[in-house]
Amino acid sequence: MNPEQQKLAEGILFTDMYQLTMAQLYFRTGLQERPAQFDHFFRTYPNYGSHQAGYCINAGLEWLLDWMKRARFHEEELECLRGEKSRTGGRLFGDDFIAWLRKNGSFEGISLQAIPEGRVVHPNVPLTVVRGPMAMAQILETPLLNALNYPILVATKAARVRAAATSTGRGALLLEFGLRRAQERAGNAGARAALIGGADFSSNTGLSYALGFSPKGTHAHSMVQAFMALGASELDAFQAYADVYPDDCLLLVDTVNTLESGVPNAIRVFERLRCKGHKPVGIRLDSGDLAHLAVEAAKMLDAAGFPDTVIVLSNQLDELVILQVLQQIHREAALQGLDAEHIINRLVYGVGTRLITSAGDAALDGVYKLVAVQKDGEWVPAIKMSETPAKTPNPGHKKVWRLYDKRGYATADLLGLYDEEPLEAEEIMLRHPIEATEWRVLARDEITAVEELLVDVLDEGKLVYDLPSIEEMRAVRDRDLERLDEGVKRLINPHIYHVSLTQTLWDLKQELIAKYRRDFV
Amino acid sequence: MNPEQQKLAEGILFTDMYQLTMAQLYFRTGLQERPAQFDHFFRTYPNYGSHQAGYCINAGLEWLLDWMKRARFHEEELECLRGEKSRTGGRLFGDDFIAWLRKNGSFEGISLQAIPEGRVVHPNVPLTVVRGPMAMAQILETPLLNALNYPILVATKAARVRAAATSTGRGALLLEFGLRRAQERAGNAGARAALIGGADFSSNTGLSYALGFSPKGTHAHSMVQAFMALGASELDAFQAYADVYPDDCLLLVDTVNTLESGVPNAIRVFERLRCKGHKPVGIRLDSGDLAHLAVEAAKMLDAAGFPDTVIVLSNQLDELVILQVLQQIHREAALQGLDAEHIINRLVYGVGTRLITSAGDAALDGVYKLVAVQKDGEWVPAIKMSETPAKTPNPGHKKVWRLYDKRGYATADLLGLYDEEPLEAEEIMLRHPIEATEWRVLARDEITAVEELLVDVLDEGKLVYDLPSIEEMRAVRDRDLERLDEGVKRLINPHIYHVSLTQTLWDLKQELIAKYRRDFV
Repeated sequence: MNPEQQKLAEGILFTDMYQLTMAQLYFRTGLQERPAQFDHFFRTYPNYGSHQAGYCINAGLEWLLDWMKRARFHEEELECLRGEKSRTGGRLFGDDFIAWLRKNGSFEGISLQAIPEGRVVHPNVPLTVVRGPMAMAQILETPLLNALNYPILVATKAARVRAAATSTGRGALLLEFGLRRAQERAGNAGARAALIGGADFSSNTGLSYALGFSPKGTHAHSMVQAFMALGASELDAFQAYADVYPDDCLLLVDTVNTLESGVPNAIRVFERLRCKGHKPVGIRLDSGDLAHLAVEAAKMLDAAGFPDTVIVLSNQLDELVILQVLQQIHREAALQGLDAEHIINRLVYGVGTRLITSAGDAALDGVYKLVAVQKDGEWVPAIKMSETPAKTPNPGHKKVWRLYDKRGYATADLLGLYDEEPLEAEEIMLRHPIEATEWRVLARDEITAVEELLVDVLDEGKLVYDLPSIEEMRAVRDRDLERLDEGVKRLINPHIYHVSLTQTLWDLKQELIAKYRRDFV
Repeated sequence: MNPEQQKLAEGILFTDMYQLTMAQLYFRTGLQERPAQFDHFFRTYPNYGSHQAGYCINAGLEWLLDWMKRARFHEEELECLRGEKSRTGGRLFGDDFIAWLRKNGSFEGISLQAIPEGRVVHPNVPLTVVRGPMAMAQILETPLLNALNYPILVATKAARVRAAATSTGRGALLLEFGLRRAQERAGNAGARAALIGGADFSSNTGLSYALGFSPKGTHAHSMVQAFMALGASELDAFQAYADVYPDDCLLLVDTVNTLESGVPNAIRVFERLRCKGHKPVGIRLDSGDLAHLAVEAAKMLDAAGFPDTVIVLSNQLDELVILQVLQQIHREAALQGLDAEHIINRLVYGVGTRLITSAGDAALDGVYKLVAVQKDGEWVPAIKMSETPAKTPNPGHKKVWRLYDKRGYATADLLGLYDEEPLEAEEIMLRHPIEATEWRVLARDEITAVEELLVDVLDEGKLVYDLPSIEEMRAVRDRDLERLDEGVKRLINPHIYHVSLTQTLWDLKQELIAKYRRDFV
């Protein structure tokens, strides 16, 4: 993409054509500045086939805001619209509409609430609430979904990989390595989402620096290969690396043969480093039976007096592979009378393709639905029926409360109307969002804490929110995960977290559905 | 991402950190300008689980070249490297290396050959061949793979979707609708790849204009919903749309109820348009049983005298869903005594999520492997052993010939050394790339045509290639697909296309493997 193409393709026209044809229709019917509200939410957790998510990690907001701040209709975009032809050869977009876009074609009129990045989130809960002039709020649909769907997906996968890596109860270092298999430029958004969701560092150099992180990495097979093609050996290549990076010496040991060549050569180089007063960092395993090789390599490193060196594992890792590797290490260590924890505690995980592409489920089904329109100064809730009841959105302007039980665990996310106060009552009715026969009653005193999840972010285009750092997002994530049921966090077939409606919201939804059926069907 | 972040994250540091640590190592060992050759290829076709690709469509080159032309080390990137710390607190990158990058840190020394975009391509065939100074050729690995892996994946999926849509022997209009579920900015690269591989148009507005296409789209449910929330009806919404777009009236008919409300209302509006001398375009179905609804809607449109209106199908379409929809239409039409072809010929396919994410297999396993290094002015082939024999790359500087049989069909891609002329012989030996016991001998006169697939693109950074238009790429694609065996094109469990080595290349590979085993293992 050359710079002119990029300007056009990443500006305000980074949206679907029908948003523009609808915007012109709103303009022609006088609705273009009519305040409307759209909710962004996802309907189902990622389902990876053999395993399923029981929670997601929210991500993507800050970059969406960056885009919204810059995106507007300039002359070149308007020129494109001016050139668009109807099927009979006339102009598709009129000069009056184009003039309106020139004046109003930005997101300065948009107010936005959102659940902060890093938080644990669930289906059918509004993650982002957009209010603003109908035409511009409509145009925002595609870029908003584009900016949020993918980061949520990757942050969620990263949280799962982290959960697997820390499943033995200890911390673990997780590196994002996916840029080469990432979906083109999304490698940057994916790396950021991974850093929010569970990765400690990334190999993506520019992105890391842009976010204030130190990028991570060692060397590739090609370095060893190049030395060998020139008549030198793996040992020579390792020694050269150690000479250049004596205090950062992490060697990839599987170019020739891991246990017969790579690890012994690494140990030779480490011994020389030790003599010179340097502390070698460790080795990386990128092929073969990672669990077995880790056990054997650990033994060899221990025997040579390097018990503190790390062992980086990479090659098609994901949450299930990591769980399996850890299990196998436990078994192999037990058979050999070794301390499995000593091996596991030195592991570092380099996770690439399967993290950045959310292997198994490569798309989040996030949607952006009209839930209210202003009429005569009043907000009128909007609804859309669907043949699948689960797809009928929850109407109106809503609040989201997270309720904590006596253990301090999140027990439900409750959606209610913006102006109701359901938590004042002694008993709180939690209605299932779809099934009329399912509900739960919580006594007020069973609830130890209540949190509103949506925060004000934009007030008519103006930022009214302190954007948190990634460190702060991670703290939020960890705190949310600590307060989430173990069953919900299960990586395979998790327990279902409750997302409920207040009685008032349930009643409104049923009333609108009934009216809708009466009037239209 | 704010503009400063974007500059850093999409510039030359859009690469993995280890490329830079290796580059400094090459610098310290005097190898930084040593000419090296890397081949880019993929090892396996995408496997979607229930179905598998038997060919890929090449894509992504032009945007890679655009990036390479602009990417170089500026002061801000060098500043980042200057600030990078070793584990003991010293500088990781030396001033001498940084000075070298300041002077040489661009891709001006890179020569590149490639198979053109739009061509049918197969595993283990070099799609891109990079020659240049070792350090910069190494840094290029990550951005090259990033720029090519994803477009090849999406172009391939688009070709498959097109194959399904045209499986009844007629043409079909295919629209790319995936931006909202795309992986953030990759929505643009994905749309371009879809346009190369099989989509006729895209809903992605900016990208379409950037490439000279007219973006496509109609309206969303939200438009109908907004009218209804304001007290108007679906019919009012349709009429408003028809008033604004009398010659481009394509109505989404499933907001309320497709057959009871949407199609009858669309027909009412179409009748009014007809009275005023306009030709309605058609309807879109986005939920429910698409095949059944298409049959019923077609009947209703026919009965109302609109047999030429199109029916756009969307909602989680992919190649298998389309095949199934077509089969079902055939069966339902037969049961009702209708002409299935009349229904099928009016279908248009809007394909979103499952195309832009390559559902089922979201990553291509493209790699970039060192295959030769210059030593004393001679090219020395490099090899890397692997515990999986299929992963041992084919060494040396190679040519790729596509051989056509007497039917005019491609029968094999043959890899040989650059300076050999295997096609001069009366019999051509086609060695299996891995299995020593598998080969095929082709008499020269069984081959009716031979084509070299790699073309010169960059000569030391200078473009020596006429970049084709997307229309030209599509012509190349169609011609390649016409000359591909039906069995190879099968969407499920396809026949395996032969990728073979010449005897000379086979011998070199075996010799290097033997030497490698002797010297290193």
